[in-house]
Amino acid sequence: MIVRDFEQLKNTDRTVSDANWTSVRMLLADDGMGFSFHITFLDAGSEHTFHYKHHFESVYCMSGTGSITDLATGETHEIRPGVMYALDKHDKHTVRADAGADLVMACVFNPPVTGKEVHREDGSYAPADAAESA
Amino acid sequence: MIVRDFEQLKNTDRTVSDANWTSVRMLLADDGMGFSFHITFLDAGSEHTFHYKHHFESVYCMSGTGSITDLATGETHEIRPGVMYALDKHDKHTVRADAGADLVMACVFNPPVTGKEVHREDGSYAPADAAESA
Repeated sequence: MIVRDFEQLKNTDRTVSDANWTSVRMLLADDGMGFSFHITFLDAGSEHTFHYKHHFESVYCMSGTGSITDLATGETHEIRPGVMYALDKHDKHTVRADAGADLVMACVFNPPVTGKEVHREDGSYAPADAAESA
Repeated sequence: MIVRDFEQLKNTDRTVSDANWTSVRMLLADDGMGFSFHITFLDAGSEHTFHYKHHFESVYCMSGTGSITDLATGETHEIRPGVMYALDKHDKHTVRADAGADLVMACVFNPPVTGKEVHREDGSYAPADAAESA
C-alpha cells in the first residue's frame, strides 16, 4: 500500500510547474498502478491549450470556476466544483480559470505520466516511448 | 469529450449505495478511458473492509477524516484532506470515517469498474471476466 500526503509532496520534485500551472504528482508510472494521479492548480485568470495525443485524461474540479472549449467543435462548457471532463478522443482543448481563485483539479492520465514530460509546442506530452513521433 | 456534473449524476443510476457508503460513478468501463473514476462517500462513523483482488485502486481524500489499516501489516494511516492511498498490491484493508462528517474520496480503478459490481462476501469486486474465480 502506498500512502502519500499532498502537503508533504508539494515542496518536492513530485511538484512540477510551468507557465501559470502547478501539478503535484501523487502517483506516477513507476508506482505500477497503470494510471497516474495528479492534483493540478491552474492559476486564477490563466488560459491553457493542451492536446494529449498519446494520453487519455480525466479532470475533476475540486474548487474554483472556469471553462473548457473543445477546439474541434467550438463548444464551451462551464467548469465548477463537481464538474468532470474526460478527453476520450484525445480532444485538443482550451481550459480557463476565472479570475479570483485557482482552479484545483484531480487529474488521471492513462497511460500514466512518467514525471519527465513537459508540454511540447503542440500542447501534447510525448508518448511513453519517446522515439514515437508526435 | 465527455463532460459530466456530479450534481446531475447523484440522483441517477450512476449512483450506487451499499451499507454506509455511496459512490457516484463519473466514468465507467464503457467510457473507454481505461480506468473508472468515482466520487465516494463513506458515512460518518462507518467502517468498511475491502479487498480488490482484481483491481488497483487509488483513493484521494477531499474532505472528512478517518483512517486506513493495511490488514497484511497491521499498520494504520491517518486519512485527512490531501492524503491518498493506493492499493498497489491489491491490499486487503479496513477504512474508517470518523464520527461527525462523511469521508469524501476521489477514487480511480484499473481495470475500470463496469458499474454492475457489488462487493462480494470477501470484500472484492468480481473481475471484469465474471467467469474467473475469486
